[in-house]
Amino acid sequence: MLSKSQISFVKSLHQKKYRRENGLFLVEGIKSIKEFIQSSYQIHTIFYTTEQREVLPQLPANINLFEVNNAELAKISTLQTPQGFMALVYIPKNKSVSTESLANQFTLVLDGVQDPGNMGTIIRTADWFGFKQIICSEDTVEAYNPKTVQATMGSLARVNISYVNLLDFISESKIPVFGALLEGKSIYKIDWKKEGLIILGNEGKGITQEVISKVNQPVTIPNFGEAESLNVAVSAAIFCSEIRRTKN
Amino acid sequence: MLSKSQISFVKSLHQKKYRRENGLFLVEGIKSIKEFIQSSYQIHTIFYTTEQREVLPQLPANINLFEVNNAELAKISTLQTPQGFMALVYIPKNKSVSTESLANQFTLVLDGVQDPGNMGTIIRTADWFGFKQIICSEDTVEAYNPKTVQATMGSLARVNISYVNLLDFISESKIPVFGALLEGKSIYKIDWKKEGLIILGNEGKGITQEVISKVNQPVTIPNFGEAESLNVAVSAAIFCSEIRRTKN
Repeated sequence: MLSKSQISFVKSLHQKKYRRENGLFLVEGIKSIKEFIQSSYQIHTIFYTTEQREVLPQLPANINLFEVNNAELAKISTLQTPQGFMALVYIPKNKSVSTESLANQFTLVLDGVQDPGNMGTIIRTADWFGFKQIICSEDTVEAYNPKTVQATMGSLARVNISYVNLLDFISESKIPVFGALLEGKSIYKIDWKKEGLIILGNEGKGITQEVISKVNQPVTIPNFGEAESLNVAVSAAIFCSEIRRTKN
Repeated sequence: MLSKSQISFVKSLHQKKYRRENGLFLVEGIKSIKEFIQSSYQIHTIFYTTEQREVLPQLPANINLFEVNNAELAKISTLQTPQGFMALVYIPKNKSVSTESLANQFTLVLDGVQDPGNMGTIIRTADWFGFKQIICSEDTVEAYNPKTVQATMGSLARVNISYVNLLDFISESKIPVFGALLEGKSIYKIDWKKEGLIILGNEGKGITQEVISKVNQPVTIPNFGEAESLNVAVSAAIFCSEIRRTKN
């Protein structure tokens, strides 16, 4: 049985402000929660419904466990159809990423992506294609937004997300900077060589002018029809696919 | 000034049942509405806010025009931030597609895709890559769902969507049937030849067993990391990209 203050505490974590204040975010569904248990993330609490008790895996002793009923879970869930389990997970410290650590690999860089679903899909896609690190501008949507977490389908547990001053970060980097732009060299003709940053911009405005000025190689996905642009998660996926196709 | 019955009529079109009954769907934002005006779709009514009056394009005489205030538009809009314009557009008749008409080209086929955002992104991506027709199983999400329409960013005006009995349709088809599956030949090694159906399945369950039995060539997007699967709109995009990369 959850107290009123427990309910209001968990509900507060639906909002970014309180996630930041408390250093906690929400993960729903046992499949995703298991991915976080097996990762370097620390779990604070798991809520599970009585009927799901037997599905509960063996857990480290430092995780709080609360049995709740369906009505209680519905109150604290961010989903229309709650999935029997919800975990409060500690937000990891924003690890600083040295530009040197990105040598000899390809790294996605997000400049102001705003939609939580797009962000989550990009993280899931990066995980599929084996990209372990995503660098984000400070105004990119929070990776711990419940919609983002949901869309990653557990991949957030495996892909490192860092928020940085993008302009400084790129300026310090010594590896090639590829930018996803509407005008540039065809992505099918790029010689990726051995390393690079792949910059993807905001859904409406694209990459900011300042960041564009740091791009060494504008890259475009050729348009064979009439749409004006591609969804940013779709663009990211085609970049990941092309890099793996040609570099493996 | 909208009457109560006008407001409740437009609001009813937020629901599939009433879209079907009335043969109308909603398009918001002047950019998308312009795409439908220039297409073969017929527009029933355009609502515009007073401050947007000057943005209004020249319109055919058979379109009803209603000036509304921001509060009225907020009442009938499906968006949290209404975009100054909303159109009621006639749903076209579900045109029958002959399997012969799909010779010498590649066509996306959706088997039970459920998420309106994924559906919209697939339509937008198909438009970008010049795929003019999408075939859907009868249980695929409705293309006229407001979230789908929004995610297409106007591309719905250019891509034909047909709902069919998928098993019958594929059985009658004489062109190769490629299926997006977790096990199959690497998408990077496919010889697409000149034509084919590209089957993409439901978000959770994939392609149905009956339809899998009709697949001639299972195709997989190689996994270089640890995610269990890719988002279906991402998979669709990588199929479209690979076909255009190798066939153009």
